[in-house]
Amino acid sequence: MCSIDAAVKVIGEKWALLALRELVMGCTRFDEIVSNTGVSRDILAARLRSLEGAGLVRREKYEEKPARYEYRLTEAGAQLFGLLHLMRDWGDRYVRDDPENIVTFRHDCGAKLRPELHCAACGEVLEPGSITSDRDVHRSDITAA
Amino acid sequence: MCSIDAAVKVIGEKWALLALRELVMGCTRFDEIVSNTGVSRDILAARLRSLEGAGLVRREKYEEKPARYEYRLTEAGAQLFGLLHLMRDWGDRYVRDDPENIVTFRHDCGAKLRPELHCAACGEVLEPGSITSDRDVHRSDITAA
Repeated sequence: MCSIDAAVKVIGEKWALLALRELVMGCTRFDEIVSNTGVSRDILAARLRSLEGAGLVRREKYEEKPARYEYRLTEAGAQLFGLLHLMRDWGDRYVRDDPENIVTFRHDCGAKLRPELHCAACGEVLEPGSITSDRDVHRSDITAA
Repeated sequence: MCSIDAAVKVIGEKWALLALRELVMGCTRFDEIVSNTGVSRDILAARLRSLEGAGLVRREKYEEKPARYEYRLTEAGAQLFGLLHLMRDWGDRYVRDDPENIVTFRHDCGAKLRPELHCAACGEVLEPGSITSDRDVHRSDITAA
């Protein structure tokens, strides 16, 4: 199994991703997520249950009587924020045809957010040709045999 | 419309993503993608047509008689490599339960690849709490009103 495949199984569905987007942006209430995304209540309830089952979201009671819950990201869920921003940035640049409606994000440094992927070890910007895998090595073995 | 939503429409499907993974890793031939992913030929043909229609993939003839084609990433497609690596890294860490089968990737610097998201403007590592959006500002306006 591939980890991309594994990730897609958990997050590769429109409403699940939009729910995660809302949670990453700090919306924790069911009704707030409904009104920000336009998702139906049934679908959102099902997606939040799946995300909870997958360990990305946890439910927390914030009112006793009547019992009311809000939704929080777990560590695994919170770590998706970078993926969501990279996905959004790619969508902004290559898919959208309505630039006037694009939401602007800013980093604390004041600049318009442009996320860039670096190697955590050496700090360099990652380029497509700078990455090799075990699988490539195994293939060369096969080719050489 | 949201760019995450827009991106998911184009790439949010298991076989489309696995085909993109293969293209990012340098596999350009239809049969090679079939054998590396286990996708059915019908589904792969359909996904490659969609990806071509969306401007992520282009078909190039590499043999005249008989006419044979290979698949190449466009600029928009090639720019997905970071997203795929971040997705893979997240899947490795938070979804997989078979660590012995995880493929290791290395950066050219020699280190095991750990992709990290930085602000392209100031170079700092991006943290969830360090990003604000137009939407937050509009909301504060509404709350303040």
